Amino acid sequence: MNSLQSNPAFIAYAIACLILSTNLIFLWAFSGATRGKTKTAINPEDAAKFGGTLVESDPPEVARVLRAHTNAQANIYPFLFLGLVFVLAGGSACVAQIIFSIFVAARLAHTFVYLKGKQPWRSIFFIIGGLATIGLMLDIIWLLIRG
Amino acid sequence: MNSLQSNPAFIAYAIACLILSTNLIFLWAFSGATRGKTKTAINPEDAAKFGGTLVESDPPEVARVLRAHTNAQANIYPFLFLGLVFVLAGGSACVAQIIFSIFVAARLAHTFVYLKGKQPWRSIFFIIGGLATIGLMLDIIWLLIRG
Amino acid sequence: MNSLQSNPAFIAYAIACLILSTNLIFLWAFSGATRGKTKTAINPEDAAKFGGTLVESDPPEVARVLRAHTNAQANIYPFLFLGLVFVLAGGSACVAQIIFSIFVAARLAHTFVYLKGKQPWRSIFFIIGGLATIGLMLDIIWLLIRG
Repeated sequence: MNSLQSNPAFIAYAIACLILSTNLIFLWAFSGATRGKTKTAINPEDAAKFGGTLVESDPPEVARVLRAHTNAQANIYPFLFLGLVFVLAGGSACVAQIIFSIFVAARLAHTFVYLKGKQPWRSIFFIIGGLATIGLMLDIIWLLIRG
Repeated sequence: MNSLQSNPAFIAYAIACLILSTNLIFLWAFSGATRGKTKTAINPEDAAKFGGTLVESDPPEVARVLRAHTNAQANIYPFLFLGLVFVLAGGSACVAQIIFSIFVAARLAHTFVYLKGKQPWRSIFFIIGGLATIGLMLDIIWLLIRG
Repeated sequence: MNSLQSNPAFIAYAIACLILSTNLIFLWAFSGATRGKTKTAINPEDAAKFGGTLVESDPPEVARVLRAHTNAQANIYPFLFLGLVFVLAGGSACVAQIIFSIFVAARLAHTFVYLKGKQPWRSIFFIIGGLATIGLMLDIIWLLIRG
């Protein structure tokens, strides 16, 4: 098989995958950093080795970052599977670029406003990301039917 | 690279991916809708903007939907990675169609009986999905060994 | 499209995907088995059908397995998306073999020391896995820029 490197739809996918993975990994690392700043630990061995108060559940500022991460996972992974299916099915580069850009921008904005606690912006960016996902699914169905 | 659109194993994967993504996105959206119906909010900004009682942990009906979602994620994502590896490794369309169908049917049934709280059906459909995943892994190993 | 079966970078990806999926599925199944051993149930229908005490939150030994699983998911899924992008972009087999091996070894070790509650090993293996992921992302960026 030839590499997909000369396929512009694949390039768009690769860039979206890099940015969305960074978004996810940032949120995960940030939840740990935030827990460190609260000087709490969820595992006894962490409290013993690194200090901090052992707690049964995370303080609110850590829980917020983890909710943002959970929301990001629930939305980004399905999109990344569907995006790859779209590219491998021969989907158009133009459609890929538009839908991937909208989704990536909406998810980055969602992360930002979730951490800042801003409504109704969080709901708005969640819905935009959801609509981009639905649009991608309809495009895949169209590709499969058209054959 | 040529598109995979004429590969029937890939078509089976694309359809499975569409249905399983819809399953995941439905559960996620449904958890939010269920929270709305209980008139509770987990984020202070949601309570402030949309009303509802601020709670520290979700009421039982919301927690059930989220457990169903967590279970779906833990099982569906590994399957979708393995399914794509199977297709890209040149796995047979017939095997793909059988295994993907069993897994998709088991997971949809699992979601339904989890939301309804029906045992032992939930365990049965979980096990069927797990066996389909193990079958897929053995098929991939066979493809790699046969070369 | 030709199968990727003769592409050694893809073979490395397929093996990594098999091992990491097994890691994830093991942790998920192990959390259920551990819950069974504590004779607790999180769902009322489980307590009614299989016995055990109905609890609102999992006992500490179950919660530990679930934290290990959550950590595994947060790290492994982004890596599996990025690894596939690397292979499909025509990344070198040698780089794939090195980075995938380091990541897989670090994650298996992370799972083991998380279940055993060993620090600073857990942090060390988490960081090694994270560095492998960053290395993979830089390799993808290099592939895309080089064209």
